[in-house]
Amino acid sequence: MSQEKRVQKEQSKWMQGKGPMSDVVISSRARLARNLADFSFPSREQKEDLQEVSRQVVEALQDLPYRLDFLALDQLSELEKKALVERHLMSINQAGPGPEKGLALDRDQMISIMVNEEDHLRIQVLYPGMQLQDALRLVDEVDDALEQKLKYAFQEKWGYLTCCPTNLGTGLRVSVMVHLPGLKMTGNLQQTLQLVARLGLAVRGLYGEGSESAGNVFQLSNQTSLGLREEEIVDNISGVIDQVVEKERQARQELLQQREVDIKDRIWRAYGLLAYARRITSEEAIALLSDLKMGIDLQIIEGIDSSILSQLMVLIRPATLQLINNRELDEAQRDIKRAELIKEKLGGGEKHVR
Amino acid sequence: MSQEKRVQKEQSKWMQGKGPMSDVVISSRARLARNLADFSFPSREQKEDLQEVSRQVVEALQDLPYRLDFLALDQLSELEKKALVERHLMSINQAGPGPEKGLALDRDQMISIMVNEEDHLRIQVLYPGMQLQDALRLVDEVDDALEQKLKYAFQEKWGYLTCCPTNLGTGLRVSVMVHLPGLKMTGNLQQTLQLVARLGLAVRGLYGEGSESAGNVFQLSNQTSLGLREEEIVDNISGVIDQVVEKERQARQELLQQREVDIKDRIWRAYGLLAYARRITSEEAIALLSDLKMGIDLQIIEGIDSSILSQLMVLIRPATLQLINNRELDEAQRDIKRAELIKEKLGGGEKHVR
Repeated sequence: MSQEKRVQKEQSKWMQGKGPMSDVVISSRARLARNLADFSFPSREQKEDLQEVSRQVVEALQDLPYRLDFLALDQLSELEKKALVERHLMSINQAGPGPEKGLALDRDQMISIMVNEEDHLRIQVLYPGMQLQDALRLVDEVDDALEQKLKYAFQEKWGYLTCCPTNLGTGLRVSVMVHLPGLKMTGNLQQTLQLVARLGLAVRGLYGEGSESAGNVFQLSNQTSLGLREEEIVDNISGVIDQVVEKERQARQELLQQREVDIKDRIWRAYGLLAYARRITSEEAIALLSDLKMGIDLQIIEGIDSSILSQLMVLIRPATLQLINNRELDEAQRDIKRAELIKEKLGGGEKHVR
Repeated sequence: MSQEKRVQKEQSKWMQGKGPMSDVVISSRARLARNLADFSFPSREQKEDLQEVSRQVVEALQDLPYRLDFLALDQLSELEKKALVERHLMSINQAGPGPEKGLALDRDQMISIMVNEEDHLRIQVLYPGMQLQDALRLVDEVDDALEQKLKYAFQEKWGYLTCCPTNLGTGLRVSVMVHLPGLKMTGNLQQTLQLVARLGLAVRGLYGEGSESAGNVFQLSNQTSLGLREEEIVDNISGVIDQVVEKERQARQELLQQREVDIKDRIWRAYGLLAYARRITSEEAIALLSDLKMGIDLQIIEGIDSSILSQLMVLIRPATLQLINNRELDEAQRDIKRAELIKEKLGGGEKHVR
């Protein structure tokens, strides 16, 4: 298997692990935007500049205390690039056309560095559960190590220079993926998300800006990074996340107390359909997996790992599904293979009857 | 347990057994309408007449070669009467008000005799599968035995006299309950039922005239009994049923060949929902049980008896469900108990995965 294929078939650490608050928080991400001094931004498409940036980055990667593999994106198929987007290791933008694009990944796929996306470097750390502090610590370590080799564009007044002004300053964007089925079912979701917005966070769907909130999963992130220290940014968002987690847990308890049969029926039906369907669309599967995860987190369903949603919401995506099956699949074929994969992951359905 | 309760809790033979063509034919029924000479029809509500009819019938039952228990319907609760209707042992009409109504039943609930319904006597035999000839033979035996004790109203010209002219002549009504999910799914159902109607049969839903065709189950019966011998009536309807069964089997094979994934998906989803739902309405359950039975008959699902539909389409009905649970249940409670009963009958869901 080529290195690229391996990279996209194995699971990223964030999909498998459990972290703090993993009943509600799926993953925590810290990302730094950096540019090299003396070279034009990628948007200018100065191929020689970008080539040199890429060369310098690859060289700097050799000396890092982490082993990172560098993928030149023009060597990858469309499917392979899409699969990397599906598991949140790079942006949709980075999968599109553009010169000298690259992606560096560690074996656990916790550290990913996009080269020549909007900025020369986007250094990302992605952890399971609520681990923003740890994600920040690691992304800072990687950044510090790179800074010893690379000359970053930095000004006293503006901090790190970035293509988009919202990234000026620390260049830090932190985001947390949360699963809010309880708030959805109690009808309190919009209100909560509005509160989150008033507290200064951006709310997005599963695949960032403009994407839909499939499976009741939302990305909450800071909007600006200028004028705040990194720790302040992380503290702010952590405080909001604490409140969201608390509200979600309350909503689930309320459902369990006031609509127990409702909720158990919904959860078990989701299980029954996931375990027995012979074909299923992405949309239906993610909606049912959302119910299933809530059932597991509420201990209504036992014997299935709570990470089932994190895992499958990536593995059943079109590109990843095709890579897993080692061939191109049309929509109808994907629906069948998706159902098979889910059935397999659920252990064939025979284990989890109360 | 009172005799009445026992009678309605145990299963009728037709619900359990398999007969010929039981992949399509659920049950076969032969029914004779008889009236005693010298007494007015029940519709006249001459209480003394009806009392005497009932007395004579009960007396005649003592000497039959079959053991039949006689239930005076005014001694039964509404629930108990409804449960007898739900298992097709008496008509909806017989469960309603009216003087001196009775029902005689054998232990297997294959023979049932309504007393003082529209006619003084409605003698019914109900068999599983396609067994019209046998049903006719047994109903004739019971009729002959009763005729030795009772003086039937009979005229050479009109045959047995009955309240409704459509029952004149032999007084015989034969009907067959068929399960036609394949024709429904291939879109050929209406065409087939129209053919059946052109061939002189009446088409009704699960609970006779005006009732809906829940679960793709239909009752096909002869329309008149005057001018034909009993054997001719049975031969006619048997010929039509043969054609319907053939068309249904063809439809299922066509589905399996042309829409295999479709059909398997539908069947397994039905199983998944039935095995895991925590509450379910009658309508949804019967629709899903219809899919499940087709899956069993097509050997897509193994390890579940094909009689599951015949059994459950009675046991999950409101009155029967309440009798099984020994208490009155409101609609929401019934939905929960119905789901529990189905789950139990399916063996908890863990056996039938592949």
